Amino acid sequence: MSNTIGNIFRLTSFGESHGKAIGGVIDGCPSGIFLDEQFIQTQLNRRRPGQSDITTSRNEADKVVFLSGIFEGQTTGAPIAFVIWNADQHSSDYDNLKDVFRPSHADFTYQTKYGIRDHRGGGRTSARETITRVVAGAIAQVALKQLGISIIAFTSQVGDIKLTENYQAYTLEEAEKNAIRCPDKATAEKMIALVQQIKAEGDTIGGLISCVVKGVPAGWGEPVYTKLHAVLGNAMLSINACKGFEYGSGFDVSNKGSEINDVFVMDNGKVSTKTNHSGGMQGGISNGQDIYFRVAFKPVATILREQETVTKSGEKSLIKAAGRHDPCVLPRAVPIVEAMAAISLYDMYLLSKTNEK
Amino acid sequence: MSNTIGNIFRLTSFGESHGKAIGGVIDGCPSGIFLDEQFIQTQLNRRRPGQSDITTSRNEADKVVFLSGIFEGQTTGAPIAFVIWNADQHSSDYDNLKDVFRPSHADFTYQTKYGIRDHRGGGRTSARETITRVVAGAIAQVALKQLGISIIAFTSQVGDIKLTENYQAYTLEEAEKNAIRCPDKATAEKMIALVQQIKAEGDTIGGLISCVVKGVPAGWGEPVYTKLHAVLGNAMLSINACKGFEYGSGFDVSNKGSEINDVFVMDNGKVSTKTNHSGGMQGGISNGQDIYFRVAFKPVATILREQETVTKSGEKSLIKAAGRHDPCVLPRAVPIVEAMAAISLYDMYLLSKTNEK
Amino acid sequence: MSNTIGNIFRLTSFGESHGKAIGGVIDGCPSGIFLDEQFIQTQLNRRRPGQSDITTSRNEADKVVFLSGIFEGQTTGAPIAFVIWNADQHSSDYDNLKDVFRPSHADFTYQTKYGIRDHRGGGRTSARETITRVVAGAIAQVALKQLGISIIAFTSQVGDIKLTENYQAYTLEEAEKNAIRCPDKATAEKMIALVQQIKAEGDTIGGLISCVVKGVPAGWGEPVYTKLHAVLGNAMLSINACKGFEYGSGFDVSNKGSEINDVFVMDNGKVSTKTNHSGGMQGGISNGQDIYFRVAFKPVATILREQETVTKSGEKSLIKAAGRHDPCVLPRAVPIVEAMAAISLYDMYLLSKTNEK
Amino acid sequence: MSNTIGNIFRLTSFGESHGKAIGGVIDGCPSGIFLDEQFIQTQLNRRRPGQSDITTSRNEADKVVFLSGIFEGQTTGAPIAFVIWNADQHSSDYDNLKDVFRPSHADFTYQTKYGIRDHRGGGRTSARETITRVVAGAIAQVALKQLGISIIAFTSQVGDIKLTENYQAYTLEEAEKNAIRCPDKATAEKMIALVQQIKAEGDTIGGLISCVVKGVPAGWGEPVYTKLHAVLGNAMLSINACKGFEYGSGFDVSNKGSEINDVFVMDNGKVSTKTNHSGGMQGGISNGQDIYFRVAFKPVATILREQETVTKSGEKSLIKAAGRHDPCVLPRAVPIVEAMAAISLYDMYLLSKTNEK
Repeated sequence: MSNTIGNIFRLTSFGESHGKAIGGVIDGCPSGIFLDEQFIQTQLNRRRPGQSDITTSRNEADKVVFLSGIFEGQTTGAPIAFVIWNADQHSSDYDNLKDVFRPSHADFTYQTKYGIRDHRGGGRTSARETITRVVAGAIAQVALKQLGISIIAFTSQVGDIKLTENYQAYTLEEAEKNAIRCPDKATAEKMIALVQQIKAEGDTIGGLISCVVKGVPAGWGEPVYTKLHAVLGNAMLSINACKGFEYGSGFDVSNKGSEINDVFVMDNGKVSTKTNHSGGMQGGISNGQDIYFRVAFKPVATILREQETVTKSGEKSLIKAAGRHDPCVLPRAVPIVEAMAAISLYDMYLLSKTNEK
Repeated sequence: MSNTIGNIFRLTSFGESHGKAIGGVIDGCPSGIFLDEQFIQTQLNRRRPGQSDITTSRNEADKVVFLSGIFEGQTTGAPIAFVIWNADQHSSDYDNLKDVFRPSHADFTYQTKYGIRDHRGGGRTSARETITRVVAGAIAQVALKQLGISIIAFTSQVGDIKLTENYQAYTLEEAEKNAIRCPDKATAEKMIALVQQIKAEGDTIGGLISCVVKGVPAGWGEPVYTKLHAVLGNAMLSINACKGFEYGSGFDVSNKGSEINDVFVMDNGKVSTKTNHSGGMQGGISNGQDIYFRVAFKPVATILREQETVTKSGEKSLIKAAGRHDPCVLPRAVPIVEAMAAISLYDMYLLSKTNEK
Repeated sequence: MSNTIGNIFRLTSFGESHGKAIGGVIDGCPSGIFLDEQFIQTQLNRRRPGQSDITTSRNEADKVVFLSGIFEGQTTGAPIAFVIWNADQHSSDYDNLKDVFRPSHADFTYQTKYGIRDHRGGGRTSARETITRVVAGAIAQVALKQLGISIIAFTSQVGDIKLTENYQAYTLEEAEKNAIRCPDKATAEKMIALVQQIKAEGDTIGGLISCVVKGVPAGWGEPVYTKLHAVLGNAMLSINACKGFEYGSGFDVSNKGSEINDVFVMDNGKVSTKTNHSGGMQGGISNGQDIYFRVAFKPVATILREQETVTKSGEKSLIKAAGRHDPCVLPRAVPIVEAMAAISLYDMYLLSKTNEK
Repeated sequence: MSNTIGNIFRLTSFGESHGKAIGGVIDGCPSGIFLDEQFIQTQLNRRRPGQSDITTSRNEADKVVFLSGIFEGQTTGAPIAFVIWNADQHSSDYDNLKDVFRPSHADFTYQTKYGIRDHRGGGRTSARETITRVVAGAIAQVALKQLGISIIAFTSQVGDIKLTENYQAYTLEEAEKNAIRCPDKATAEKMIALVQQIKAEGDTIGGLISCVVKGVPAGWGEPVYTKLHAVLGNAMLSINACKGFEYGSGFDVSNKGSEINDVFVMDNGKVSTKTNHSGGMQGGISNGQDIYFRVAFKPVATILREQETVTKSGEKSLIKAAGRHDPCVLPRAVPIVEAMAAISLYDMYLLSKTNEK
């Protein structure tokens, strides 16, 4: 149950970091959707390690192979299975981790829960699992695009360096032009410099990703326990290293109701709102305005420095990561946030179709 | 589907604010649990309107009536149905709202999605639905208590007034001694004064609730898409007026990995951590440390001031709420946050039992 | 989980035979459906005890009260909760059953599974639960009727007395004109005479119900594990006392492929089949032909004769039912079979809407 | 949703007959189960084509490759993905079927539902999908065996040739010694002769499979809508070509209640029943007696004879199958029935663990 997400458009993922393959099965995808393999690969490349000097230098090709559910380039309504074969594994980098718990990783909790774990490269807990989200998300994005919907995520904060304006102040597409994926060039440069410094220290840093969805019509989302923002929140919180989710005014609770209520106005014959502190969702249902939210990511837990810890048998130990690791997860997490948004929104769209006699 | 929460311990809720009753059905509750009706009523009283001069003066008795699933004072494994009859309804207070959309409420989105809505008192979108969560939560809390688990939530911020220390600095039980449910007396007084001022202005204010869960053993939570923190986040985000969720270090992303990693240590023969920036969950599974998280609530959307809006037929209109409303939702939301935490944790506990041969 | 049926149109039922009420919550019903309370009550009356001298003489009014989800006579998309208050309970009839296991009832299995049971009138295991199915089924039937679909069930066999022709040979509406609900008058009379004789003996008898659904278009049902006939089979097998399900040619396996294949032909420009041994479903999806199936019911387990048994503490005991009981469940099961067919088909209809881009 | 079966132990299957691979993902399998690859392959070989001269001569190796969820020979609690690569495909055998609907196959219903279909070898509707059930079933069988449970299915009827005695009269393991998998040698020989004759005619024949499960303790199965026999019925009805399901006394409704009730007796200090017309399940919950049921299979729809039909564009056409096909599906369906029984029972076992405080 735990490895499936979605109600109608459902992704079931599988695979360990150093096993034979990572992959997934998408069930409930409507038939007749063009499988845009080039777009899927583009998205995978945005997530891929080794794309810049501020990401890990691991060289993973991450080519997706579809096994089912596609006929003559289109989805058939049958489950879409896909695999990404694992390669370039330095499993021996992890031999010293077999019996030791890496701080702030899931080694201890998995060992306790299951009594057994595949320690190589983090096994099932590796962020390599997010490949499957990007594949499923890209298929959902193609379908959403045809409905006039666009999804753009970007890095809005790294450590203490942050964008100072609302998203409307930036040309979001600019984010793709720099390694950190921040739409403001000056801020991006500061962020990149910070990450390079952190990397030189053998340390890591976290930050925030913002996401803006345009074009969602009013009426998506299901009350009471499947509210659109709860579905998005759940999807984001399921991403490795995610520590928080807020939408609209979120954690900024300084304003009074009279200052923050979104007054309804008519706009070209359509009901619209003067402001959008609601983040495009009211009562858990989209209201036709931009949907926007922010996601917090902690620093990558693997650092290239010596740390204290304990072993499976309860002995004190020291640990120092070998291997190639990201000093900052944010640029690679941007396409993952977009993918999870696409999966969630497309699922809610399909579910909303069932409210017809 | 949307009115049910949980995997094993499942609450399905029903009812509108001014309909005949609000109620729910709990399925999957194990047999043999003592139904502590007094504790349930205590929790309902903490959520009840009219409990202090900073909450709404509506007088709702909120007595729960159990219809099934109980025999000789214990649960039988059969579904537990319950109702709270609606009373003291001033439906006429809402007559002027039949055709008009209240700003930052769900009137417009429900009307658009369903083509019909019960406008009286907000109908299905009313926070009166949260009564059912408190009932189910109280049952879960009784079961969790027997496992040695305690759940305490409290108000940690109202507008700009906030607690300045970590939760460890306070005696959390003190929160119950003041109307705003903040464990620090001096801060509580400032918060109450602020709410009184806001109320006098006919305005509303939001804030944050923190929640601490002690006693959860390592091993609860299901990877990858049913992570314990994602389940909690989803549950909290489903509460009316909730705008964000964070756990552990959350949105505070200023620290480096080396500063924020939770180093493992032995503590009386058990694996423990030196710090707890992880908020008691690693890789989506509890690690035996305190679970803590924060939830953001916006100001109540209903204000006693004139606001612009539009009608169903697209005419400009003015709206001013009559009726009795909360200037600040936080004190009444505290038991709701506790209830949703209990429901989520007990469900994950029951689910964790299935990982046995 | 176990007290809910359906994927989109979902019924969660609750209640014990001698508790306060029997009821249910229907979630996922589209908005804008006229709630035909008269039709619902008509269906309940067809299921009601005391309707003829071959059913139990218990006098249960079985009036349904709706608690939510209805506004101005229509469904709103919110969950539809309803209760039927229990009355005319002779709980003392069951006092002698507190510690004894009735043969072929669920007393022993519930006691073993749950360690506690409400023994009064069978508690949760009572067929009184099927009231909730009739209510939900009637709502589904109203919606299906507007799609041009009709569902008729009838008694086709009692003990060894059976209809000899295919359903096409009878005017199915005639079934409603006699107490056993068999469309052939002569057969019906023989069946009734048999039931009366069985009743006089203090005994009970089982039989078969057939069901025919007309008007379902091609395309309903979901491969591979949610095949339309599997969904129908599961729904029927969940009815108390049901022992088997077959559709189309079913258990009659005497014919060769060449004799039983349904050859495709054109009929007024539409693809049709020359025969319908498939029972209107191929590969688990409706093909536009009549859907038909048969359901087997065992004799009611409660007989007015002395039977050997054992007690909770393992002592030998004798048992003889007091109370008022049905000698044959079939006539009252007819509307239940129709209701379960309606719930299943409407659910599959709503699910089929999600296969659109 | 439709390609997943199970509540806790969940199989999601994928793949088309002539696509790259058939496979599945098992989620919710407890950790620490020994993966008995040899037993799995033995079960696959029992299902495999080409095993005798009364099955198809297609030569499919059906070797399963595990991709994830296994570490050092044991399950880890992570999803278990597996593929069986397709080979020996004579896709050109199916070229003539691209635009024509095979009688009593799912070509027409899939085409109507999805607007597109992979026609090669039946695509997703091929019984080749049942390989995945056998793999998942074998894993469940290993786990059930350790709980003392055995599952044996056998062919009990082919056309009009049937076993005349109850299952207790036979040594069920004898079934494996002949090509038709019937435990009575004399009957088996008649069945085989019939199948050979049918095969010579280019025709096909159906029949019944019986299944007996020993060792299930009292208490498995979940009321009301997840009754153990309904779960089994649903699982069996999801198998290709299945037309009916009955358990215990099933469709034989000739007996009165007094003749068919299972009287409780003590047996070595345990509650037992004198007879077992209930088929080991009462009120949807196992009672500790043998569970037994029967499953009806229609003749394979593909016959080597000319049949009338129509094309996608509504033209009359003639069709005659080329390729290699089974004259009788029963011997190969025996391990599939066992597998589905194992999946269902193990799932219900895991679910029953959640009824603990």
